[in-house]
Order: sequence, then C-alpha cells, then structure tokens
Amino acid sequence: MSIGKGRVTIPTDVDVIPETLEIMKRWGADAIRDCDGTDFPAELKDVDAKIYSTYYTTRKDNQWALSHPEEIQQMYVMTPFYTAEGETLEITLMKGLYPDMLTPNSRDDIKRWWEVIDRTTGEVVPVSQWSYDEEKGTVCIKAVPFHDYTVSFLAYIMWDPVHMYNAVTNDWKDVEHQITFDVRQPKTRAYTMERLRKFIKEHPYVDVLRFTTFFHQFTLVFDELAREKYVDWYGYSASVSPYILEQFEKEAGYKFRPEFIIDQGYYNNQYRVPSKEYSDFQRFQRKHVAALAKEMVDITHEEGKEAMMFLGDHWIGTEPFMEEFKDIGLDAVVGSVGNGSTLRLLSDIKGAKYIEGRFLPYFFPDVFYEGGDPVKEAKVNWVTARRAILRSPIDRIGYGGYLKLALKFPEFLDYVESVCDEFRVLYENIKGTTPYCVKKVAVLNCWGKMRAWGAHMVHHALYQKQNYSYAGIIEALSGAPFDVVFISFQDILDNPDILKDIDVILNVGDGDTAHTGGSWWENPVISAKIKEFVYEGGGFIGVGEPAGHQAQGRYIQLSSVLGVEKETGFTLGYDKYNWEEHPDHFITEDYEGEIDFGEGKKNMYALEGTTILVQREKEVQLAVKEFGKGRSVYISGLPYSFKNSRLLYRGILWSCHGEELLHRWFSTNENVEVHAYPLNDKFCVVNNTYEPQETVVYKGDGESFVQKLKENEIIWYTLSGEKIQPAAE
Amino acid sequence: MSIGKGRVTIPTDVDVIPETLEIMKRWGADAIRDCDGTDFPAELKDVDAKIYSTYYTTRKDNQWALSHPEEIQQMYVMTPFYTAEGETLEITLMKGLYPDMLTPNSRDDIKRWWEVIDRTTGEVVPVSQWSYDEEKGTVCIKAVPFHDYTVSFLAYIMWDPVHMYNAVTNDWKDVEHQITFDVRQPKTRAYTMERLRKFIKEHPYVDVLRFTTFFHQFTLVFDELAREKYVDWYGYSASVSPYILEQFEKEAGYKFRPEFIIDQGYYNNQYRVPSKEYSDFQRFQRKHVAALAKEMVDITHEEGKEAMMFLGDHWIGTEPFMEEFKDIGLDAVVGSVGNGSTLRLLSDIKGAKYIEGRFLPYFFPDVFYEGGDPVKEAKVNWVTARRAILRSPIDRIGYGGYLKLALKFPEFLDYVESVCDEFRVLYENIKGTTPYCVKKVAVLNCWGKMRAWGAHMVHHALYQKQNYSYAGIIEALSGAPFDVVFISFQDILDNPDILKDIDVILNVGDGDTAHTGGSWWENPVISAKIKEFVYEGGGFIGVGEPAGHQAQGRYIQLSSVLGVEKETGFTLGYDKYNWEEHPDHFITEDYEGEIDFGEGKKNMYALEGTTILVQREKEVQLAVKEFGKGRSVYISGLPYSFKNSRLLYRGILWSCHGEELLHRWFSTNENVEVHAYPLNDKFCVVNNTYEPQETVVYKGDGESFVQKLKENEIIWYTLSGEKIQPAAE
Repeated sequence: MSIGKGRVTIPTDVDVIPETLEIMKRWGADAIRDCDGTDFPAELKDVDAKIYSTYYTTRKDNQWALSHPEEIQQMYVMTPFYTAEGETLEITLMKGLYPDMLTPNSRDDIKRWWEVIDRTTGEVVPVSQWSYDEEKGTVCIKAVPFHDYTVSFLAYIMWDPVHMYNAVTNDWKDVEHQITFDVRQPKTRAYTMERLRKFIKEHPYVDVLRFTTFFHQFTLVFDELAREKYVDWYGYSASVSPYILEQFEKEAGYKFRPEFIIDQGYYNNQYRVPSKEYSDFQRFQRKHVAALAKEMVDITHEEGKEAMMFLGDHWIGTEPFMEEFKDIGLDAVVGSVGNGSTLRLLSDIKGAKYIEGRFLPYFFPDVFYEGGDPVKEAKVNWVTARRAILRSPIDRIGYGGYLKLALKFPEFLDYVESVCDEFRVLYENIKGTTPYCVKKVAVLNCWGKMRAWGAHMVHHALYQKQNYSYAGIIEALSGAPFDVVFISFQDILDNPDILKDIDVILNVGDGDTAHTGGSWWENPVISAKIKEFVYEGGGFIGVGEPAGHQAQGRYIQLSSVLGVEKETGFTLGYDKYNWEEHPDHFITEDYEGEIDFGEGKKNMYALEGTTILVQREKEVQLAVKEFGKGRSVYISGLPYSFKNSRLLYRGILWSCHGEELLHRWFSTNENVEVHAYPLNDKFCVVNNTYEPQETVVYKGDGESFVQKLKENEIIWYTLSGEKIQPAAE
Repeated sequence: MSIGKGRVTIPTDVDVIPETLEIMKRWGADAIRDCDGTDFPAELKDVDAKIYSTYYTTRKDNQWALSHPEEIQQMYVMTPFYTAEGETLEITLMKGLYPDMLTPNSRDDIKRWWEVIDRTTGEVVPVSQWSYDEEKGTVCIKAVPFHDYTVSFLAYIMWDPVHMYNAVTNDWKDVEHQITFDVRQPKTRAYTMERLRKFIKEHPYVDVLRFTTFFHQFTLVFDELAREKYVDWYGYSASVSPYILEQFEKEAGYKFRPEFIIDQGYYNNQYRVPSKEYSDFQRFQRKHVAALAKEMVDITHEEGKEAMMFLGDHWIGTEPFMEEFKDIGLDAVVGSVGNGSTLRLLSDIKGAKYIEGRFLPYFFPDVFYEGGDPVKEAKVNWVTARRAILRSPIDRIGYGGYLKLALKFPEFLDYVESVCDEFRVLYENIKGTTPYCVKKVAVLNCWGKMRAWGAHMVHHALYQKQNYSYAGIIEALSGAPFDVVFISFQDILDNPDILKDIDVILNVGDGDTAHTGGSWWENPVISAKIKEFVYEGGGFIGVGEPAGHQAQGRYIQLSSVLGVEKETGFTLGYDKYNWEEHPDHFITEDYEGEIDFGEGKKNMYALEGTTILVQREKEVQLAVKEFGKGRSVYISGLPYSFKNSRLLYRGILWSCHGEELLHRWFSTNENVEVHAYPLNDKFCVVNNTYEPQETVVYKGDGESFVQKLKENEIIWYTLSGEKIQPAAE
C-alpha cells in the first residue's frame, strides 16, 4: 500500500525501463534521475515525473580539457618530509601519488608558485637553491645535512578524483579518465556557459539540472595503488590556480604564498585553527564561486529549467550556510544522508526552494552483492536520519546508483516503499512549522556556521576513532529538541550580543584544535565573555579537552568554569583529593549501566568544589560545577547512542537550570522520542529502534500516558493527545 | 650467622640501649645514629662504632629564629586562580594553606617582591592597582571583570615542613613548631658557624656530623587540613629571600621577577622545559650553596669530625651531580633508597669519600604497626636496590627511625641480618671495579645530569599514574649492564662531540615536557644532530611522545627517525594503511604473554616503512625502523618489571646492531640477571625474585650452563665459571 505520491526521486538506466515504472509506482516517486555511469532512457522522457539530469560542470569533456591544458583544474600538493643525508637532496614529486591522477604544473612559473621549505627551520628555501628536473620529476635541493624538506607544488588534475573513485569502486575497465577543467578560468568559463546552454537545448525533456557540482572538488588524492591517500570533504586545496591566486592577491592586498594552502601538509583541515590567510581565501572563493555559479543558474532559468546543486564532489566554495550562498539563486540542493548530522547539513540550508536527501545505501556493488544486506543499512540510515528530519525536514528523499542492483533485493524494495510512505506523512505533518525547542544551544568553535552540523567530520559521515566521541554530540543534537546554532570565536568578537539569547554553549573536541579554539583562549575578550555568560546564568558543556590550550598556568583555559584540569605533568606536584563520585544526579538519573564515554580522556582531574559524577581509575569522565548563577558540565567524550543522547539532553537542561522542563514532550524510555509542533497542533512519538517499545509519554502540560510502539513506529497525535490516523490512498 | 662486620648503620634511642648493642652485633653494624625526635643515649658514647649525629643546620633553634625574624627562611607561593566577578577582587593569601606553616612576608617591600598577575592576559598588574590588607590577609585588586588573577607572594616558613611532616605522621602532641632559618643571610650565617663549632664541642663522642641538611628545603606545602598540598623533591621555591635575590640580580645582570620562581604556578618543576632565568638561578644557587656548605664542612674537619650530607630535606642547591658539588669537600652522603633509581641517585655521586643508602622501611609507625608487614617492604626494597648496587655500589647501608618499633618484628630483624651479610659480600666482590657494560646509553632531556636517575620523579620514588610508565625506563636502566649517562639538549649544543662515544639515545616522556624537550626540537642544530647520530649508526629509543612538540607539520619531531606520528586530529585526512603487526622480532622474542605498556599512549600511528611489533585498537605501542645505518625503537610506555626490563635491554641492543652481544653475561630467565666484573675476575648470577629460579647462564665467551637459584639468591663465580664460596666468620 502506497500512501500518496511524491517527494521521492529514483535512479534509472537504459536497462531497467519497465522496472523503473514499477518502482515509481510502488515508491510513489515523482522524479527520475541518471547517475555517473548511467544513461537516461529515451523511453522515459515523457513519463509523469520530473526528470533530473546530472550535469558535470567540470568534467566529461576531455576534448575541451586536452585542447586547453593550461585551464585544467589544479591542486596544491605537499610531498612527504624528506631528510637530507648530505648537501643535496632529490625529491621525487609524484612518489606516493597515483601517477595518472596528477601532473605537476611546470607550465606556470614554478619559482613563483612552488615552495621548497626547510621544515627543520620553517624557512623557505630560496628559489636559487633548488631546481626541477621535469624529465625525472624531481626537485633537487641544495640542503643542510639532516634538515627535513618538503616541496609544495601545483599539479593538474588529470583524472577527476570522483570519476576515478567511481571507476575503481565499480571496476570499470578501459574507461577514459575524465579530466577536471577549471570553470573559473577565462576560456573555460566562456565555453562552459555555451556548453551549458547547448546541453539544455539537447535535453529538452530534462526538468532539473543536477549540477555535480560547480567548480572545485573537495580534496581527494589517491596513492600509487589507487587507494585513497588523503581526503578532506571540506578541503580547498583543489580550488587553486595561478589565475585565481593572482586575483586573490589583488583582493587580499598581500602576496600569496603556497603555504597558505599547504599549511605544513595539514591543508587547513577543519581541525586546524584557521589562519587569517586561509579565512581570507575562503571568503574570496565563496564570493567568486557564488557569482559564477549564479551565472550558470541564471542560464538554467533562462532556458526554463530548475537548477539543483549536489552538495558534494565539486561543491567547494559554495558553503551553503554562508551569506554568499543565497545569491546563487538555486532551486534545490541535494546531498547524501549518512546520519542525522548530514541530514541537518542539508535541511538547515536556507536559500534554495527545496532540499532533497539522497539516502543510503547507494545502489553500488559494495552493498548490493550476493549475500549483502542492504535492508540493514537502509534501516539504520532511515532511523538515524528520521530523528533529524523531525527537527528540520528535508523536502524530498531519493536514491542513487544502479537500479538494477536494487531490484535483486525484494525486501529492500519493500522496505524503501514503507520509508517513502512514512516520509510523506511526516512531511505533511511538520513542514513549515517550527518544532518545540526546549532551549537554544550554541556549538562554539573556530568555524561557526560554516561547519554547522559537519564539525569533526573528515570524509562526510565516516567513522574515525579520533572523532566519534565528539561527533556523537553533534549527532545527538541533530535530533534533539533544541534550537541549535553554530558560532565562532570571531562571531563573539564581532558581536558579543550573539550570546544574549543562547542558553547553553558547547565546546567539544581535543585541545588545540579548531573545535575547542586553541590560541583563541588567549584572547581576553573571548575568555572573559564566556566566563561572564556562565556567571550570569548560562550553561556550558565541555567535552574532551574543552578550551584546551597551554597558557598561563592552565591547560583547560576555562578550568575555573568547568572545574577540571588536565594533568600534563606540570601539576603532578599538586596533591589531588577530589575523587569521590556522586552518582546520584539529575544528569545520570535514568542512565542504566556503565556510561559509554567512547575514547574518553586520560589525565583529567577535578579541582576543589567540582562534583564528580564519574571517574575511572582517577580520571574524571563526567563532572559538574556551579559558577556564579551558571553551571558547567564536563564530559570526556560521548559517542552517539540513545542513552548518550538522553544524557546530553539532561546535561543541557541541568546546565541552564532547566530541570523542571524535563517532563515536557518527553518519553521516559530513551529509545523513544517525542517531538511537538505547536503551530500545527501535532506531536509525534517515535520508536527509534527495531524492537517494540513501551514508554510513558509526557505532553506539554506535563500530563502523561503510557504508549506501546511497534518496531520503528511513529505515532502522530494532536497536541491534546488524540491519535491521528494516517489517510490511506 | 653474621658474615663479617661493618658497612651498616643503625638508629638508636635512649630507651633501647641493650637492644642497640644486640642489633649491632647481629647486623654487624659499625655505626649508630640518632634521628629527628630521638636522643643519642649517653651509655653508648663509647661503643665500638662510629657515632653519627644528625645536625639540623636550619632548624631546632627557635630562640634564634624568633629573635631574627627577618632571617627566617622564605618561599614563593602563588595563590590559586581567582576570577574577578566585578571591578574589584579580593584574594585571601593563605586560603588553602596550613596557617601555622607560612606567614606572608610584608616586612620586605611587597610591591617589589610580590606580583599580581592577570592570568587572562598574562600581564603583570601595576602595583598601583592592588593593595594588601595585612590584618585581613587579603590582596585587593582593581580588576577587569571576568579576568583571572593570581598573587605571587613571599612567605616565611614558620614550621619547617619536614618537622611538620614528622610531627603529623607520628602524631606528636604539643610539639613546638621548629622554624626554618636562612643560613644564607648574614646574621644567621655568622651565628651558624659558631653554633656548629659549639655543637661539635658539646658532642665530643660524635664521629660524623650528618647534616640534615644544608640550607634550603625542597618545596613542600601543607593545606588547611595539614595534608600535603604541593611537593617537589627538586623544587627551589623555598630557597629564596630578597637578600639572595638581590645578589642574584647583580650576578645575572638583569632584574628579578617573582614569576621566574612562580612559573605560572608550576614552580619550574622538572616536567617544565627550564627557562633561561630558572637555569641561571639554579646555577647561582649551586655556586653559593656549595661555597657556604664548604665553610661548614671545613669547620667540621677543623674540629676533627667527618661531614656527611643527607640527600633530602634541605638539600636544595647542592645538586650532587653538578660540578660545584665536589667543592663542598664532604666525606659522605647518605640518602633514602626507594628503588634502583634512587640507589643510583646516591651511588653515582662523585665528590664524597663514601656513600650510604638508608633503606626502607623507615622504622615509623606507618609500617611498624601491629599486623603490619615490614619484611615484605624490606624484601621489595632490597631486591630492587640490589640490582642497582650491582651496577654501581654504595659503600654502606643503614636504617632509620625508632629502633624500638623494629624490635617487635623478629622476622624483620632476621631478614635485615641476611641483607647486611649479603651486602658485605657483594661489596667486597665488586667495589672499585667497573662492571661489564655492553653499551653506552644516554638519556636525553632538558635537565641532563642534574636530574640523572631522578628523571620523572616528583616526590622521591613515589608512584604516580602519569609517570610510572616512563620512570620504568630509568628503573630498568639502574640495574642494567649499560654505561648510562644523562645529557641535556644544552650539552649537545655546547659540545656535539658528546654523542661520539654514545651508542644509544633514549628520549622518554610526554610531549612538550622537559623530558622529551618541547621547543628544543625547533632548534635545527639539535634535531639535525640527533638525526645524524642515528643515520651514522646510532640507536634511538623513544618512549611515550618522544620529541613530541607541534611544529612544522609534525607532532613527533623525529617522526622521520622513529617512523611514528601522533594523530592530533590534524592528520585524520591521511589514510593509514600500515597496521600489520610483526610479532616475531629480536626485541620481543622471549616476552611471554601480553606486553605491559602501562598507561601506553593513544593515537600513535606508524608511517610507511615502519615495522609495527605491537598495535592495539589501531594505536601503535611498539614499533621499529631503520634510519640510515641506525635504528629506532618506539615504545608507548614501559613500567618497570623484569619482563619489561628485558624488553628494553633487547631494544637497546637491537637499536645499535648489538644483537650478537645478547648472549654475553646473560640469563635466559628474565627473573635472573648476570653481572660481570672483569677486573676482579668475578661475575654473579642473581635471582631477583622470591621464588626459586632456573636459568641458562651465558658467560662472556658465549659458553653457557644451567643454574638453579634459591629465592633471592646471588651466586658468585670467577670469570671462568668457578663458584666462589662465601667465607663464614
């Protein structure tokens, strides 16, 4: 039984035409798309659905690329560190890199655009002291023995990294390597606009151009064995060229250095406290990318089509949460949904008419193989995303890949059918309203809204041992009844009033990273402002090494607020007597079993006056403290789980004296959540698990009732508590 | 059966005269001593033994102290951090301190000698912006709201910390608090020399003056509840006074600031990379302490007595491993032996005629209570110390405390008797010779020989969770067949040739501490020299976060040598493929079971080309790498144990290509060790456990034989392998 129709996009291909129509019907799809490596079947051109066509702004035109090699997209690459064993050192630039993917750019003046750095001293090696042997591909340096050197160089992207990834993953044979060309450069820019118009004219049946994407690929490099070598979903390293950098120099008013992008080999990834130069460069890129993207969107509109942007691949510089984005004038944004955080990464975007989430699993053979379990992945994906959708809905859902692979899994087809139905119901129930928010919380880091919902993320939603204990906080927030904002230290400097309507600040991550702030804590305006905020009644949640930065006698710069400090060795001489646990606390009241702090933190201890809720082997994991009228909570780490999400919820409430608000739109069973939509006179109770659950549901007036839920069930009510029956079609 | 006589010192008191004589005989003691809180019995004055008398240079004369209050010893103290909640902030200086111990010194110009610091900015608050209310004991600061402040002030030591410790530990009632006076100041200095002569004349029966000690107590402060609040056995905070500091200013040629001593509240403890000013101050103190101590030693000699120094309590500034020490002209040094490291802390001292180790347990009621097990502590203490004695013998052993407490434990008396016998035998066998050293190793840190054998130590041999995994290396070395030296980075700068005869360098500890070097690694001379050393064939053992300091794209500054790096978040974008373990390696060959890395280290990963011996949950614990002709070994931590000691031994041999030397003077069973003394034509096989052991013993020529040993047994042989029977008396 399909409930209604619409809000669903499916992929198609020439070999699955009748099946496409069948799936359209079953899933209620109202849009069909092609994918990288598929073709849109002529037979479906007149189908009763919107037709999306992927449009590759920067590739699939090797003829153009090869005839304008100087406008092939470039990236900055730093070699590994090499130790000089004598007075000369020869560095092979491409060692460790996939040879077909990159070619060093010696077309432009290498002495201007490359940089050899003595990493032992940090000094730039004068250009007279090194030379490049193009034939051998080596840089020869006049070296100081036993100093370490790196070469930063520009390379042309001779095989688009995403095309390469798709080719390698799907084992495509004899595929021509698609070269990435740089739309920002003059000839390609002019050509691109013509090419776009031509494409649209040649595909009159297409309703929506799905730009994949605009101009610059996130940083993605492969090694000699074609394995991923370096990835940064947020990286700007592949958005450079002498042409662009000369413009940047003019606008910034100072000379460009490769090191601004190379950043010691860290490539300004989001764990780095951003430098002024990198921030300037990002601002410059946002401005120019938005302006150029607007040109393409305008053409799309002129030709009577909708413009949809894929938030991925060549998305660098668009920055959907920044001011410039709105100017592009997009109709839609589509992106991959890996969890609640990546859902919000899409659904919180302003400046597009609608947002579509591409759900997992992607119909690729890595999941859809004989014996594979795509239903399992789909279930986890949906239930995780649904939490976030209930806070901030996307407008459409969709799937990608090869439909023929999915067709072999009938249970998967059934399951997705139920997901599509459920999505439409909940969309109707909540769209256009603001869900009930118990408090307003701000995640404070160096990036603020630019990395909203993506904080700690390296390669989209990918797990990493070093970040899951922090990303868990973001994930918990993605589906929690809070008004969540992401602010930067600079935001506070620019406008301290930004904190006025915020109830609780969160600072999450390892010390001396951009997520906790590093040297920002040496700025007296910042530290005083945060202390004042808490003193006046605000809440502060610190996770990991919050405000962690060694200066002036402290590692945890907010130790007076948080009541904890890290033993770095410097305070071993101080006797520590505060180790008693106080397990009975509002925050941990309903947590059954041992709290999972994930990686936790070593060496944290509590100062006098701090209340320890959990310490393990004399390392504090969870502690609370009063500071003036405010309160702080220290947590060593908090991977995402229903239990931990509940713990964070309670921690936030406690930190801003909101304990009495606990039993409002609340489920006593942490596997079940309650979301209210006062403007729509609705609330729902949602079972986040695949087992039946029973819970006590508290309504907004504090009244409660017992509710049983089937696995994964979502039940809708009017605010007063009457069940709403879904309308069957 | 007592074997021989001599080399043993026992304590006595007026209430145990016959027992003293009995124990003298049983233990073969040839020296008797008094202790803090005991009196030397008149009846024993003519006993056939040397008589030691403790001599308290800086206390036990309150009449003098009180009539010269301006010359009472002082210390610098920093208050905790206080946050200004408004525009004034009042800080109570003595909050958190034991009131009877310290009194703020407002006699000297507080505006010159105190310092109020805004720890939010790091700036000194101008003296016009604060005032001291002596009656209330508070400093009132004109503050910036929500900045944090500390007050650094001078305080008189009104109750000697060791006297206080002894009084509190032994529950002494109504004891007059002994005030510490400052011998460095002019009136007390003159008086002290007279007082010393007078004491000697009044105690003609005394043979040896046991100075306890000279002038300055290591840093030791108690809190309001008389609990230890802060301790640093190496701390110089209590060696200051305006009188001394004005001299320092003149000699150093720059203005003194309290912050030179306060060091942000870290008091320049040995984990801190020492500042130039602190190093200058230590040098100044060494010079003047040695000169003044020499005056007292000279008087002692003039009066026909021996001068013995206690290495503890007021030992600050004497620094027995530094040049100045020899000038004092001491006859003897005595110190407490907690383990092998603290044994070497004594036995490696040059510049005294003989060295005495005071063994544990001290005869205090904390061990000698009904139901206590002093034998157990004695056994652990002896067996641990014996390893080190066999490498570098002390000349005498001794015990301290209240003999009457020990008398209640006959098994203890028996056990110590056997220890005394064993000590005399081994002393005869090895004294004056150099044991066989397989290699020369250097522990490299910021302190070098000044903190030889005491590296990582906070309160003498006290365990701390944060240091046992590093101190384990020092402890292992204390009894290992290596020529061990301790060198500093400055030593290498001053004379790079220092590395020429060194086979292996060890760098042990957490990053950004003095033990690993911190910002020293930004000195290109240092890092290049170390790399060259390894490249040319040297070994390098890094433990914990060796060369750990964030700079120029690396945390582990020697990552090219060690082949490991720490994931700080900055390199999450780099894919890491090197995780395969290679468990079969020379270093781990005979390690049975899981290796104990103690606290280990999180987030360490291996670079390409590095061989991982052990990783746990993708965190490298043990790895090796070749670098040029040299080799490196990375170990995450290594608490002391026989197994770990063996692992380190193998690691050192492997790192300098010394594998073929393994089966020289070697025991296959790691509970048993072999030490050879080629000059004396002897070697011994020693069972370090309290169970019988069997082992294969390899002699210097590589020949081997099987040997069974009784618990704790030590067997002596000639070099060719004939057993030497101990001569019974």
